[in-house]
Amino acid sequence: MIIQLYKTINPEDLQSIFNTLESNQYSVTQVKTQFENYLVCIGKHDVDIRIIGHLKGVKDIHRVSDNYKLVSRKWKTENTKINLGDDVIIGNGNPSLMAGPCSIESEEQVSKIVSHLVKNNIKIMRGGAYKPRSSPYAFRGLGIDGLKMMHEQCKPYNIKIITEVMQASQIQDMIQYVDVFQVGARNSQNYNLLDALGEIDKPVMIKRGISGTIEELLNSAEYIFSKGNEKLLLCERGIRTFETIYRNTFDINAIQILKDKSHLPVIADPSHGIGIREYVPKLALASLMAGADGIIYEVHEKPEEALSDGQQTLNFIESEKLVQKTQLIKALL
Amino acid sequence: MIIQLYKTINPEDLQSIFNTLESNQYSVTQVKTQFENYLVCIGKHDVDIRIIGHLKGVKDIHRVSDNYKLVSRKWKTENTKINLGDDVIIGNGNPSLMAGPCSIESEEQVSKIVSHLVKNNIKIMRGGAYKPRSSPYAFRGLGIDGLKMMHEQCKPYNIKIITEVMQASQIQDMIQYVDVFQVGARNSQNYNLLDALGEIDKPVMIKRGISGTIEELLNSAEYIFSKGNEKLLLCERGIRTFETIYRNTFDINAIQILKDKSHLPVIADPSHGIGIREYVPKLALASLMAGADGIIYEVHEKPEEALSDGQQTLNFIESEKLVQKTQLIKALL
Amino acid sequence: MIIQLYKTINPEDLQSIFNTLESNQYSVTQVKTQFENYLVCIGKHDVDIRIIGHLKGVKDIHRVSDNYKLVSRKWKTENTKINLGDDVIIGNGNPSLMAGPCSIESEEQVSKIVSHLVKNNIKIMRGGAYKPRSSPYAFRGLGIDGLKMMHEQCKPYNIKIITEVMQASQIQDMIQYVDVFQVGARNSQNYNLLDALGEIDKPVMIKRGISGTIEELLNSAEYIFSKGNEKLLLCERGIRTFETIYRNTFDINAIQILKDKSHLPVIADPSHGIGIREYVPKLALASLMAGADGIIYEVHEKPEEALSDGQQTLNFIESEKLVQKTQLIKALL
Amino acid sequence: MIIQLYKTINPEDLQSIFNTLESNQYSVTQVKTQFENYLVCIGKHDVDIRIIGHLKGVKDIHRVSDNYKLVSRKWKTENTKINLGDDVIIGNGNPSLMAGPCSIESEEQVSKIVSHLVKNNIKIMRGGAYKPRSSPYAFRGLGIDGLKMMHEQCKPYNIKIITEVMQASQIQDMIQYVDVFQVGARNSQNYNLLDALGEIDKPVMIKRGISGTIEELLNSAEYIFSKGNEKLLLCERGIRTFETIYRNTFDINAIQILKDKSHLPVIADPSHGIGIREYVPKLALASLMAGADGIIYEVHEKPEEALSDGQQTLNFIESEKLVQKTQLIKALL
Repeated sequence: MIIQLYKTINPEDLQSIFNTLESNQYSVTQVKTQFENYLVCIGKHDVDIRIIGHLKGVKDIHRVSDNYKLVSRKWKTENTKINLGDDVIIGNGNPSLMAGPCSIESEEQVSKIVSHLVKNNIKIMRGGAYKPRSSPYAFRGLGIDGLKMMHEQCKPYNIKIITEVMQASQIQDMIQYVDVFQVGARNSQNYNLLDALGEIDKPVMIKRGISGTIEELLNSAEYIFSKGNEKLLLCERGIRTFETIYRNTFDINAIQILKDKSHLPVIADPSHGIGIREYVPKLALASLMAGADGIIYEVHEKPEEALSDGQQTLNFIESEKLVQKTQLIKALL
Repeated sequence: MIIQLYKTINPEDLQSIFNTLESNQYSVTQVKTQFENYLVCIGKHDVDIRIIGHLKGVKDIHRVSDNYKLVSRKWKTENTKINLGDDVIIGNGNPSLMAGPCSIESEEQVSKIVSHLVKNNIKIMRGGAYKPRSSPYAFRGLGIDGLKMMHEQCKPYNIKIITEVMQASQIQDMIQYVDVFQVGARNSQNYNLLDALGEIDKPVMIKRGISGTIEELLNSAEYIFSKGNEKLLLCERGIRTFETIYRNTFDINAIQILKDKSHLPVIADPSHGIGIREYVPKLALASLMAGADGIIYEVHEKPEEALSDGQQTLNFIESEKLVQKTQLIKALL
Repeated sequence: MIIQLYKTINPEDLQSIFNTLESNQYSVTQVKTQFENYLVCIGKHDVDIRIIGHLKGVKDIHRVSDNYKLVSRKWKTENTKINLGDDVIIGNGNPSLMAGPCSIESEEQVSKIVSHLVKNNIKIMRGGAYKPRSSPYAFRGLGIDGLKMMHEQCKPYNIKIITEVMQASQIQDMIQYVDVFQVGARNSQNYNLLDALGEIDKPVMIKRGISGTIEELLNSAEYIFSKGNEKLLLCERGIRTFETIYRNTFDINAIQILKDKSHLPVIADPSHGIGIREYVPKLALASLMAGADGIIYEVHEKPEEALSDGQQTLNFIESEKLVQKTQLIKALL
Repeated sequence: MIIQLYKTINPEDLQSIFNTLESNQYSVTQVKTQFENYLVCIGKHDVDIRIIGHLKGVKDIHRVSDNYKLVSRKWKTENTKINLGDDVIIGNGNPSLMAGPCSIESEEQVSKIVSHLVKNNIKIMRGGAYKPRSSPYAFRGLGIDGLKMMHEQCKPYNIKIITEVMQASQIQDMIQYVDVFQVGARNSQNYNLLDALGEIDKPVMIKRGISGTIEELLNSAEYIFSKGNEKLLLCERGIRTFETIYRNTFDINAIQILKDKSHLPVIADPSHGIGIREYVPKLALASLMAGADGIIYEVHEKPEEALSDGQQTLNFIESEKLVQKTQLIKALL
């Protein structure tokens, strides 16, 4: 059960609501986000919600039978939009495009990609500064310096930045350069990181775990929301199965299910979702057809020279064609 | 290595080719299909294919490094088209639609569905006569009587029939009523059935196994082809993974990979691919966007009363809307 | 619900039972096996089973909530024993050993293996005559000739034979040479084959499907039982997962679960369960420790020269050591 | 390639080794652990290792073709032993037992469990202070207070403590109360946590990821080792598959493979490995039979009242029986 409070609620009325809930053996979590003030109430016994609905200070109330509560569409039926400023809005019906290299490598590399984004009217740049790599001896990214490079070059064009954060202690250093924090697939259930991201006022895109269920992804989003941050995006990037002919099995089913179960925007990552460059564009288009609010993909001037993920990265010509085709899809939708 | 022979090759020239191959330690399988005459040659040592190319009776020759040979696009680069007669052709660039009930239940049921197909210009009817069911106590289909019902009602409208065959001994009874034999997911590696289907002159659609790899599906097709039947279609219908929120994980990646690895047409089955009615249409459209040559889906006048698979079956209104949308996709492609 | 009838029940009493069941909207399947006479009754409404228990001709009656009925331990609590004659009994508390080559290759090969079995007091020989292979161009076994070879050499020593049957039409040719029919993993849900094996009076060992669930395996056994054959064994042989460092993921959990859910004996196949020779013996022992009634494994005089599965086949010395260790386990159990 | 250096190497000799390696285009990571001083060298071109072996300051040198280097048995052939003090040694041939509750709940709960451990001569207590839970509203453990409770009661009996750490920032608070840090399945690829654990001088047990490959687990161990901590244990706790009848699919194959690929001790977690109480003891014994160096399992005075994981937790009687049976196995091994 979720109770939405008037933000002007006075302490006595709040106490009275708590008392009623506790006398009904509900455990209550109070959640204050950027926009609203909620009580998430979990109990084993049913209670007549009209009794609570009539209490002073209560704005709205709904039962939510899902394990996740605040991110559930049973609570909020309209779609959530994420506004990044400068008219860059995710979830407003237009497919959002996020593109850039796997890793930030150099000033020159960033500069070329930014030009490509500007030319193609792509408003959000992706780029890894901190890179999770399965071997400790692999290239692990340029760190904060890479992020600063990206920020400096994106700013003049109002291009927004999405990049991965790997642990809570990095957040404060990164926050001024970042428009959307990305939680990677390996950290999808790193609850301390999720808790910490719940305490900031920046959008967060959570990738589904390597073998994460759809329900686990929604619970991970609930972690962040329940700590106070409701600016959230979900990302399908493929799951691990027995099939080895491609990198991951892109779970196109997940897009419709996530859109149905939750009010949060859903982004598709076709680059990781199949892992083979020549198949990325059609997978991107199929994802939009299935209802994704946007796509995030890897692009590089010379994919064959990229320090990581080159085999799944589009070159500028391929990327440009993809952008054009998304326009056709947009018209059709 | 595949050698295509002139069909007029004389026995001496054929013997001479065999001799050359055997002296190079190749094992040779001779394959005569409806259209062509091939030798599939497997050996460990490389041989200069020009030597063989110059032998009398040889029309064409190619190395094929894949395990599967005749179904590989390394052998045949142009797309295979399957002509069912009456201008019903699969794989010619127009999305093919196949629709009908999970199980044939009654004359009346079939009649209503046939009307729906005629009205919506759907040229191929699916419908199960023999039903594989996980429990021996479940409804197992009407058998040959169901098939006859379907045939009688489809014939006047030139609607073609696709239906599942479960064992070799059924083929002869079924063949006069069937336009495309379907091999179900559970029989995808039933090699005796595949062998038997290789000896007939009717198209066969092979579904991917419940946890079949893409390579296994292509090898299953190779089984049929190598016995002499090259009228083959491949079908992606979802795979088994850890995710349980839907029925199967539709592997949209497989569509592009199959189209790339093989020259055979690829059909998507969104009904089994997600297993939940309201999500079937978008999944169908996404599959076409990913490059599928057609879709096969379940439709019933009253899905809630269907004897099997009702939860994933469209009603007539939903089906009609889907058909209209496939027209838009067709225009876009 | 299962009703066990007295075998001497007269037709009027039987009819009266049917009438009572049908008036309670139960669908009834009559099952006559080698030993007993059952009614399997499936209905949506509960009925007081005492009413039926009091009817003439009823010997026993139990509710069985599982999907599978006759193979469930909710029906039969004591362990089933399979008697192959000559004091070879599976499921009597002593671990049964079944060993032999992947494929029957030659008289000489069989002869050497039979000597090895005799020497080590192994009472059951495995050996493939019909081999399911993923490629149509691979060695597919010697067929009935291989089976005859095996039979001729095993008979003098009373060694029992287990071998795979791939389709219903092979059963009659094979039956005189076979002591246990094996249904392979790829045919685990080949329902026509299961039906046909239900109509014979020979034990059948059913392997779990490549990605078959435990419940599916039990339902496959139910198929055979419900057609009249209750001499059944279940076999765990590893499942397909994302892990590729070995051949299959041996599901050791399945052993305990199968023993708990069903009264049928459970055999472990460590050769396919891990697929790497050096790890087979310990996996065999661990399976016995987990409660398996026996193990089936591959042995060959020279595994490196075997025509199939050499990489997972023990040589005679390794096999002998394994036999000795199973004796220690037996003592400990 | 790994180079082991004499700890007394002088700077000039070290520089000279670096120079030689760099002139051969090797990238070099210097690793100083509690015991040794290594260079991990990664390069694309082969080099004659004798040239480097003859350089001053080099104690030993080996090629290691695996992705992971220092944890590979190709580097170190003898088994690693982990000495926790007071004669508690893991990996010395005797099965190590680690037992305790899922979560630390109260002084009283801990006290009863400690008595049970003492009585049964179990030397290592497990118990969660920080609990990763899929829902943010679930019980998340008593935190540092729980850990202190456990420490206070274990100390008088020299019982060692293993407990989960969830993020780098917790390490310093926890370290004085902990004998072995556990990295949980969800954090198995949380590289910042692994890096941080590489910088301390306490043993670390790394659990395999929920769908982690065996190679990923070894690479996670390599992360810690390469930062300087070579006191490592690996833990198999079951993987996620399509089977839902139990909690996880315990990968018994992994035990032998890990023991073969790496010199590190391998611990089995049968409680999470099957997730159903009655099956835990046999799974524990099977794991030891397969070669595990120890087992970690959940025990509670009243499992049905446990705040978490009660369904897979043994009571004291079951635990005592298990301990007795491990003695028999020990004798047999």
